[in-house]
Amino acid sequence: MKNFDINEDPHRRFNPLINEWVLVSPHRSKRPWQGQKESISGAQLPEYDPECYLCPGNVRANGEVNPAYDSCYVFENDFAALKQEPIAFEENNTPTFFKAKPERGISRVVCFSPRHDLTLPQMEVENIENIVATWQKEYTTLGAIDYINHVQIFENKGSVMGCSNPHPHGQIWAQSSLPTQVEKTHNSLKQYYEQQGRTLLQDYVEAELKAQERIVIENEHFVALVPFWAIWPYETMIVSKRNVSKITDFSAAEVTAFAIILKQLTTKYDNLFETSFPYSSGIHQAPTDGDEHPEWHFHMHFYPPLLRSASVKKFMVGYEMMGESQRDITPEKSAEVLRGLSVVHYKNK
Amino acid sequence: MKNFDINEDPHRRFNPLINEWVLVSPHRSKRPWQGQKESISGAQLPEYDPECYLCPGNVRANGEVNPAYDSCYVFENDFAALKQEPIAFEENNTPTFFKAKPERGISRVVCFSPRHDLTLPQMEVENIENIVATWQKEYTTLGAIDYINHVQIFENKGSVMGCSNPHPHGQIWAQSSLPTQVEKTHNSLKQYYEQQGRTLLQDYVEAELKAQERIVIENEHFVALVPFWAIWPYETMIVSKRNVSKITDFSAAEVTAFAIILKQLTTKYDNLFETSFPYSSGIHQAPTDGDEHPEWHFHMHFYPPLLRSASVKKFMVGYEMMGESQRDITPEKSAEVLRGLSVVHYKNK
Ligand SMILES: O=P(O)(O)O[C@H]1O[C@H](CO)[C@@H](O)[C@H](O)[C@H]1O
Ligand SMILES: O=P(O)(O)O[C@H]1O[C@H](CO)[C@@H](O)[C@H](O)[C@H]1O
Repeated sequence: MKNFDINEDPHRRFNPLINEWVLVSPHRSKRPWQGQKESISGAQLPEYDPECYLCPGNVRANGEVNPAYDSCYVFENDFAALKQEPIAFEENNTPTFFKAKPERGISRVVCFSPRHDLTLPQMEVENIENIVATWQKEYTTLGAIDYINHVQIFENKGSVMGCSNPHPHGQIWAQSSLPTQVEKTHNSLKQYYEQQGRTLLQDYVEAELKAQERIVIENEHFVALVPFWAIWPYETMIVSKRNVSKITDFSAAEVTAFAIILKQLTTKYDNLFETSFPYSSGIHQAPTDGDEHPEWHFHMHFYPPLLRSASVKKFMVGYEMMGESQRDITPEKSAEVLRGLSVVHYKNK
Repeated sequence: MKNFDINEDPHRRFNPLINEWVLVSPHRSKRPWQGQKESISGAQLPEYDPECYLCPGNVRANGEVNPAYDSCYVFENDFAALKQEPIAFEENNTPTFFKAKPERGISRVVCFSPRHDLTLPQMEVENIENIVATWQKEYTTLGAIDYINHVQIFENKGSVMGCSNPHPHGQIWAQSSLPTQVEKTHNSLKQYYEQQGRTLLQDYVEAELKAQERIVIENEHFVALVPFWAIWPYETMIVSKRNVSKITDFSAAEVTAFAIILKQLTTKYDNLFETSFPYSSGIHQAPTDGDEHPEWHFHMHFYPPLLRSASVKKFMVGYEMMGESQRDITPEKSAEVLRGLSVVHYKNK
């Protein structure tokens, strides 16, 4: 009988952060593609777009005018998924199959730059440090609100990721409950910490640095790697080397190191298919429920959909929705490809 | 303080099948959309396409020739994600963070009809009965293989769902393990059955028939409804009224009733935006591990991405990936819309 070769044979891998498996089919990456292609927008954007509702000085849908901001600018989402208003609710009225609870929260938009045409890889490190400082401030002020127990910072980049405006921006949804995916991670981190007295990601990063197979970038304070259990073709995770539970624990040196690794990782992404690389990214960090969270370890996920070119993405559909996430190219191969790419943006060459 | 109104206030709902929550933002459905639009293919397809690798008599990528089939036709996927070959593997070699196991399985393609231009809603009930009979046969023969413990029957329809060929077809991935989503459902069904002595879905369907708020179609043997915890805008589930754990337990009358409800539901879907409605669908039923599974209750999920028109879909991106699934329109509203649509296809009017 043939011996198991992880680089060739179909297998499942376990994700200890959310306690779920993923199906890996290394042999399948040569599949031809005749299906839907994403449209590529190669258009050079203007520095300022009079039609953009995020550009400085422009009017938004609700009639408000953006200030003439010159670094980051944060405002409440005009079509927020959450509302701040308190709602009266009787917990014990909940019937078995119809369990519902009101959810209170705040949704904000974070413009990364006044420049309409810049994305993270094209910004200066100081500009990215400003974004990190803005995230720190928002995490602190939103987290300080008594009913806010979780602050989700994220970015949808590119139209294929549901982003309707190329002006560089992210979002923050802060709410009362731990969202489903965060709660899963929370439970795993907690259990590991209770058993081992160390954070799961501290031990994981150590093991990855030893293996050197899935590392994409390493600097003094952070590592960017393709997780062993990644589901998206070029999924990565930035993890702090030090066991910090939240972004507000960063030292000044860590803020800079984080800004640098963000710039380098997103530059490699753009260089991969010589396109403005779409992804959803998001920070997972300690809840803001007022407790200490030594089990939490700061990390940022990048979920990019592209598979083979700027126009061919991976579809997470039938089997993935009914069964489990499935990938073709191995995480080791993806890491190798990303590692080999320049940290100089292809447009600046 | 305002009292909780489930039709207006942001809230979370609980999905007892997989033990996860979903965020519902009813007030947000009026959000304007300036983002990516899906291309709509209104082209009338030919009955036979000489370029299609699924049409009768044509040659596939691997050189094999399809027979001149006249109802359903099943073949092994030429680019299977799973392989049948047994792989030698030492379980106890698994390190903590690098848990991987070989997975054995079989992937098949099921052509629903020799006609290139027909989808489920446009087929005769007898043709759909043939598809159901094919699914029964595949579930039986694949399930009988000693190392196959789960048979996932599914369909990706439409290019937006990663389907690369409009010829009507579905797939079957049969494998050793219970995939992640199935295992979650399995655990919930088992726990409920052990506690209540009835299946979870038996009691749920009863409660839904009493409430009459989320029912889309009901016939003697099946119900199509929008689950209370649906995540996709027009997500539905077909559930058997009788407590059958698998498709091979259907009586002849149930096969017909299932074919009819499949035709009616997919017709309503096409009528919604007067387009060939994209979705991924899949059947969840008892594992084929040789055990009795009285806790299992046959159901079929439909996950359609469209939100507001034939070209505007719901994006499950940043918040949804990092936090939890989020929807705007309520399941009650979606059910009302679907209920109001004709079961006569718009092209036949
Ligand atoms: O097998 P197909 O139709 O080529 O591929 C499609 O369905 C598969 C199963 O859901 C997915 O893994 C692929 O990403 C998708 O493109
Ligand atoms: O808030 P936006 O950018 O309008 O909307 C985008 O991001 C949200 C949060 O991930 C999603 O719920 C929407 O489906 C998506 O289109």
